[in-house]
Amino acid sequence: MNPFRFYNPTQLVFGKDTVSELGSLVAPYGSSILLVYGGGSIKKTGLYDKVKEQLASIHATVHELSGIDPNPRLSSVEKGVQICRENGVQFILAVGGGSVIDAAKGIAAGVPYEGSVWDFCTRKAQVQKALPLGAILTLSATGTEMNGNAVITNWDLKQKRGMGSIHVYPRFSILDPTLTMTVSKEQTANGIVDMMSHVFEQYFSQTKDTPLQERLCESILQTVVENGETAVREPNNYEARANLMLCGTYALNGGMISVGMQNDWASHDIEHAISAIYDIAHGAGLSIVFPNWMKYVYNARIDRFVQYAVRVWGVDPAGKTDDEIALAGIQATRDFFTRIGAPATLSDVGIGDESLDVMAADAVRFGPLGSFRKLEQQDVRSILEMSL
Amino acid sequence: MNPFRFYNPTQLVFGKDTVSELGSLVAPYGSSILLVYGGGSIKKTGLYDKVKEQLASIHATVHELSGIDPNPRLSSVEKGVQICRENGVQFILAVGGGSVIDAAKGIAAGVPYEGSVWDFCTRKAQVQKALPLGAILTLSATGTEMNGNAVITNWDLKQKRGMGSIHVYPRFSILDPTLTMTVSKEQTANGIVDMMSHVFEQYFSQTKDTPLQERLCESILQTVVENGETAVREPNNYEARANLMLCGTYALNGGMISVGMQNDWASHDIEHAISAIYDIAHGAGLSIVFPNWMKYVYNARIDRFVQYAVRVWGVDPAGKTDDEIALAGIQATRDFFTRIGAPATLSDVGIGDESLDVMAADAVRFGPLGSFRKLEQQDVRSILEMSL
Repeated sequence: MNPFRFYNPTQLVFGKDTVSELGSLVAPYGSSILLVYGGGSIKKTGLYDKVKEQLASIHATVHELSGIDPNPRLSSVEKGVQICRENGVQFILAVGGGSVIDAAKGIAAGVPYEGSVWDFCTRKAQVQKALPLGAILTLSATGTEMNGNAVITNWDLKQKRGMGSIHVYPRFSILDPTLTMTVSKEQTANGIVDMMSHVFEQYFSQTKDTPLQERLCESILQTVVENGETAVREPNNYEARANLMLCGTYALNGGMISVGMQNDWASHDIEHAISAIYDIAHGAGLSIVFPNWMKYVYNARIDRFVQYAVRVWGVDPAGKTDDEIALAGIQATRDFFTRIGAPATLSDVGIGDESLDVMAADAVRFGPLGSFRKLEQQDVRSILEMSL
Repeated sequence: MNPFRFYNPTQLVFGKDTVSELGSLVAPYGSSILLVYGGGSIKKTGLYDKVKEQLASIHATVHELSGIDPNPRLSSVEKGVQICRENGVQFILAVGGGSVIDAAKGIAAGVPYEGSVWDFCTRKAQVQKALPLGAILTLSATGTEMNGNAVITNWDLKQKRGMGSIHVYPRFSILDPTLTMTVSKEQTANGIVDMMSHVFEQYFSQTKDTPLQERLCESILQTVVENGETAVREPNNYEARANLMLCGTYALNGGMISVGMQNDWASHDIEHAISAIYDIAHGAGLSIVFPNWMKYVYNARIDRFVQYAVRVWGVDPAGKTDDEIALAGIQATRDFFTRIGAPATLSDVGIGDESLDVMAADAVRFGPLGSFRKLEQQDVRSILEMSL
């Protein structure tokens, strides 16, 4: 186990109808609120009205920024910063999935900063302070509801990059599993792949002597696998939705499950290079890339892949070589993704081989990827080829 | 899964020599510090000098309260409150095990409160605010380093009671596994029993549909079992000490592993009734009581005990009845406690049957105990009899 710091000041408010606690949660932060949301589905479901009622009950002045897209755009973030500055906004409330919350984090960090929010993504600047923000989560996937990370896409540069700071942890996140019942089968599947991928990035690590962390990771993976197909098949199954919601949050909440472990994140970097060019869902990209990354790197620490196959997928090791066990676990991962309806190849999402070099070059723009096995541009290209 | 709120603002600073970060961690809170510690072992190990150096480096004025006993006394807490008030103390630093940190929490809550700290233990008053505190942990056991609970003993009334508040979460806890290497075999064993007991109180629950939480609990139990004997046998084994330290903290950090589950805590209440009369270590009392509690209640939800036996202890269920499986898991618990040197009976710690009625009556003073199976005074007496 490596030395570590862990600090996660986000309050979770979990359960049916917890939106009714919104007013009291927001009130301490002020009365000028920026409400950030996506394409308007929250109006169809009635959530928008409930939020407005809650904010009216504390006599808040509400400014709105709607239309946040998946893979949230720098331009949306900049628009939000402008609204906040012009109106003296004191608190940002994000209502939606990962993209909406990530956009809110970018806005929160951007308001007190003189330069462009993109500076945080290119490491030109570090977030020194931010407006406080809170979230109501409507889609389980990214874990952004309980961490300090955000991913922003700059369409002018065709680049998708992450930023992170302790200052943009949501002060609270309202997690009502019933709000995720209207999420489509496809988005539910993408969310499942996303949360499992977050665990993979932490679990497939070269750090030794981390038995508790490995088990915590496996606990989430097993629970997602158990509940994932049910949630896709029965969208209104409360317990399946609740279990997935908790798994998604715990999978990436400031590193709680992987304290003292070196993380990898190569697969995410590869996926970001894909979805910066092709506007595909993050989870879909991960579903395509991750099992191929696994096949490409598993020999760098085969014991971890053997453990994964046996503990998470119940692969019977009797009479099998380590290679066979590891590959059976990787195949089980691919099969599960397919069972829940997630794509397996780039061609499944209409992507050909025309940009492999551009994507591989973009992925390693800041240097080789990952730590489980360090990947150079040629390695990334090979994984992309395996994904065609 | 039940609705829940989860909030844990303690920062963990984990690893060898992390005491060197103390100065920078304390500095934001002010320069008048109360240093709380126990019987002076920190002077023998050199930790005291390191702490004083760190505090000198930020030019702090240090007041001291030493001699905090196991089962910390209300009188010590009151003395600390007085020192803080007389000297305008701005921050409390606890250096020691659970008792020292619990005393510091009592002091922190007592300083701004006009009445007695005992009021928080009897629920006559709730903590409204507290001085900020931080901790350097030297003994892995109670989890107090990352939660808002404290247990105080009132020797005038011969009562041991808990208090809790979000205001007394440590702002930071420094966890250096090397500091626990000088802990005796006996105290190491008691700590192991204590952390496992904390998981039991959460895991043996009547709440349905909590698959992730159950696995998180089992992850800690398995890791403690794997590392416990090693730590007792090889006190300087860094990885065993580090794994136990993380397990002890995660076992009781504001309910992270059992969000949305009803907890029990009957065994702790019974143990508190014992150690309020007899000054035995908390872990020793739990080692005696817990397996007997298990035998007494397991039929209230046998499937959970079957799962415990199979997943934590690897009991082979083939050809066994549920009763046999459950009892094999309970016996494995007792055997493990014995292997690490923890006591099995009240007579092992010199306690006879002279006070069973007094203890049973004290335990249910505020009503029946627990929720897994509700225990009346006669039930508690039966469990105490089984423990003779």
